[in-house]
Amino acid sequence: MLKNIENLNDKLMPKGFHFLGKNVGIKHKNLDLGIAYSEKLCSSSAVFTKNSICGVSIPIGKNNVKNGKLQAVVVTSGIANVATGSEGTNNTLNITKKLANELNIEMDNILPSSTGVIGKQLPIDKIIKGLDNINNLLSPENYQEFAKAITTTDIRLKIRQSTIGNANILGIAKGCGMLEPNMATMLVYFFTDALIDKTSLDSILKKAVDKSFNMISVDTDTSTSDTVAILANGLSGNVDLPLFEEKFTELCIDLAQDILRDGEGATKLIEVTVQNANTFEQAKVVSKSIVNSPLVKTAIYGADPNWGRIIMAIGKVSDDSITEESISIFIGDNLIYDKGTINNEYLDTIQKYLSETEHCTIKIDLHCGSSTATVWGCDLTEEYIKINSSYTS
Amino acid sequence: MLKNIENLNDKLMPKGFHFLGKNVGIKHKNLDLGIAYSEKLCSSSAVFTKNSICGVSIPIGKNNVKNGKLQAVVVTSGIANVATGSEGTNNTLNITKKLANELNIEMDNILPSSTGVIGKQLPIDKIIKGLDNINNLLSPENYQEFAKAITTTDIRLKIRQSTIGNANILGIAKGCGMLEPNMATMLVYFFTDALIDKTSLDSILKKAVDKSFNMISVDTDTSTSDTVAILANGLSGNVDLPLFEEKFTELCIDLAQDILRDGEGATKLIEVTVQNANTFEQAKVVSKSIVNSPLVKTAIYGADPNWGRIIMAIGKVSDDSITEESISIFIGDNLIYDKGTINNEYLDTIQKYLSETEHCTIKIDLHCGSSTATVWGCDLTEEYIKINSSYTS
Repeated sequence: MLKNIENLNDKLMPKGFHFLGKNVGIKHKNLDLGIAYSEKLCSSSAVFTKNSICGVSIPIGKNNVKNGKLQAVVVTSGIANVATGSEGTNNTLNITKKLANELNIEMDNILPSSTGVIGKQLPIDKIIKGLDNINNLLSPENYQEFAKAITTTDIRLKIRQSTIGNANILGIAKGCGMLEPNMATMLVYFFTDALIDKTSLDSILKKAVDKSFNMISVDTDTSTSDTVAILANGLSGNVDLPLFEEKFTELCIDLAQDILRDGEGATKLIEVTVQNANTFEQAKVVSKSIVNSPLVKTAIYGADPNWGRIIMAIGKVSDDSITEESISIFIGDNLIYDKGTINNEYLDTIQKYLSETEHCTIKIDLHCGSSTATVWGCDLTEEYIKINSSYTS
Repeated sequence: MLKNIENLNDKLMPKGFHFLGKNVGIKHKNLDLGIAYSEKLCSSSAVFTKNSICGVSIPIGKNNVKNGKLQAVVVTSGIANVATGSEGTNNTLNITKKLANELNIEMDNILPSSTGVIGKQLPIDKIIKGLDNINNLLSPENYQEFAKAITTTDIRLKIRQSTIGNANILGIAKGCGMLEPNMATMLVYFFTDALIDKTSLDSILKKAVDKSFNMISVDTDTSTSDTVAILANGLSGNVDLPLFEEKFTELCIDLAQDILRDGEGATKLIEVTVQNANTFEQAKVVSKSIVNSPLVKTAIYGADPNWGRIIMAIGKVSDDSITEESISIFIGDNLIYDKGTINNEYLDTIQKYLSETEHCTIKIDLHCGSSTATVWGCDLTEEYIKINSSYTS
C-alpha cells in the first residue's frame, strides 16, 4: 500500500478543489485515472518537458494553459500515449471533451497528462465509459486517491502542504527517473486557493521550478511527458506575494527531494552545492557534473570517501578557469581537499559520515566569483539496474 | 592471469622496439612499471584528456611530444599522480630523468604516464631504485609484460597488430571507464616501424581517434589521464599513407571495442549508427545520447525490446529538426519504428536478438540529410555497481 512520505493535515486543504482516483481498465486493478477539479475557474501556469519527442498530452496542455485558465486536471497512468500519432491525439482530445461534458466546464480549461508505456494506444472506449457520471465521485477528501491514480511504480506517495495567511497550497508529485519500467515521467500539480494573477503565477512557477525540479537529476534521462502545473482558484483571496513565492519554492524543493527519495533503487539523497563560482551557469554545470557522475553516485552508495571522483567530475566540465589550485572540496563538514592541499586524515570520518547519512552533502568552493547553485541527485545501486533491466515485454 | 582478447603473432612486430614490465613496489606484487623504447628516435604524435584537472604526466607529455619526437614511453600503474601539486610534477620529472640516463637518451623524448588512485604521491625512491640497470631487461619479446604493467583492474589484455606493406603496427591499450576503483584511465600506445613524418602522423592520429576512441563511452566520465600516442621509428621505410591511415583507423576501432568488451561489468557491446543526419555533429550527438542513456543500457542488458527508451533518448537532445515523423529505428535488422508507424510485431524477434547477441546494433535514420556517425558503448549491469561501490579505502 502506498504511503505518503510526510504526515498530512486534512484541515490545511485549499478550498474548492475536488479529487478522485479510480480504475478504468488501463492497469489490471490499480487506480489509473486521476481527476482534480476546481469549483471556480483558476488562474494557472504550467511548464513542460523539453524533450522534442513528447507525449500527445503536452501540446494539448500547452495550448490549454496558454490563456492562464484551467479548471481541471485529468491524468491516466499505465500508458504514456507517446509516439501514437493522430489516433493518440484524438484519444486525449476525446477524454477532455467527455470530461468537460461531465463536469459542465470548457474542454480548453482541462490539463490532460498520461504516464506509462510508450508506443501503445490508450484503451479509449474503457476510459470514456469510466468517465460516465464521474461528477458523483469527486470530493475534497479524495486527494490521496488522485495521488495514487497518477503513479506507475512509485513506492511512496509524494504529497506536500503549505500555508500562506488564509491560503493553502497542496502539491502532488509523481515519479522519478525510471520508476516506470518503460518510460519515466515526472508529474507535479499544485492546487491553491490563493488569488494570484496569471502573470505573477507564471513568474513564480518558473523561478521556483528553476530552483527545484530543474535542479534534480536521477540519471540524466529526460522524460517525454514531464509536467509541473499550478492552479489557483482565488477562494481565499489575496496573499503576500513574496511570502507565497518563498513558501511555494520551499514546497517545490521538498517535493523535488521527495521524488529523489523515491528514486529507483536510491538509498541516499545527494546534495551538491557549488559556491563562489563566476556565474550561476558555471556553478550549475559543475554541480550537475558531480551529481550525475556514475563514479560519484556509486562511491556514495558504497560509502567510499573517494574524493578523487569528485575532482574528476569537476574537471570533466573542461572549464579552463577552474584549476586544481582554485578548488576546495567539502564532504559533509570535512574539508578533504583545499586548493592543492590533500587532507586525507579526514578519510575515516568521511567514510563514517557516508555510511550513516541518508542526505549526503558535497560542497565545492571555486574561489573565483560569488555565484552559487545547489542540485540534488541520488546514489546508483544494484536495485536501479534490477528495476530497469528485469522487465521484459 | 591476464590474457589477450585476440591471438597475437610474434613475427608481425614492428622492428626496433623493446619493452619491459616489472614490479617496483607501487602495487604489492603485480607489474606496475612499463617501459617501451625504440632504438631509433621516432616521429611521434599524441592526444590527451580534455579533463581540465589532469594528471601531472599530461602537461609533461604534451610538452615532450610537441616537436614530434619521442624515443620511449614510461608508465606507472597503481597511483594516478593527479592533484599532487609540484611534488607530483617533480616525481614524474625525476622518473624521466633517471630513465633518460639509463637509456642514454634525452629526457624530453620520453612520454610519461601514470594510472591509478588520485591524491596520493608516488613512492618515488622505490621507482628510481627500480629503474637501475633497466636497460638489461628491455627486449622485443616483452610487449605482453609492458601491456600487463600498465593495467590496473583490467580483466583482459588489449593488444592488436596490423601490417601495411613491410611495416607493422603494434597497439596496446589499457583501461575502460571505471576499471580502477578510484579513477579511470585509458592509455593507448601504438608502435610502428613505418617511416612517417610528424605532420602526417598528427593528421592520421587525430582523424583515427575521432572515429574510434572519441566515439566510445562507458559512463560519460572523463578520465584525468587519458592518452593515445603513436611512435614511428621508420626502420621499415616508407608506406602507402592512405593505406596506413585506413589500417590504423581499423586498429583504433578494434582496440576501442576491446576496451568496451573489457568494460566494468559489461556483457554486451552496443553499436549505434545514426545516418542521414543534417550534419556529422547532429549524428554524433544523437548517437551518443542513445549509447549513454542508462535506460537504454539497462534495457539491452535485460534483453528488453524497449524501443520507447531509444526514442526518448533521441528526443532528449532537444533538436527541433527531429520529429516523430522523421525517425526510423532499427534494432538489429528489425525496423521497429518507421516515421510514425509502430511495428510491434517485431518485439519477440528483437527480444531473442538481444538475448543472444554480444554485439547489439541500433540504427537510426533521421531522413533529413546525408551525414553518418557510429558510436560504441556497453550495457549497464549490477556488476558495474559492485565494482564501483564495494571498494572502500
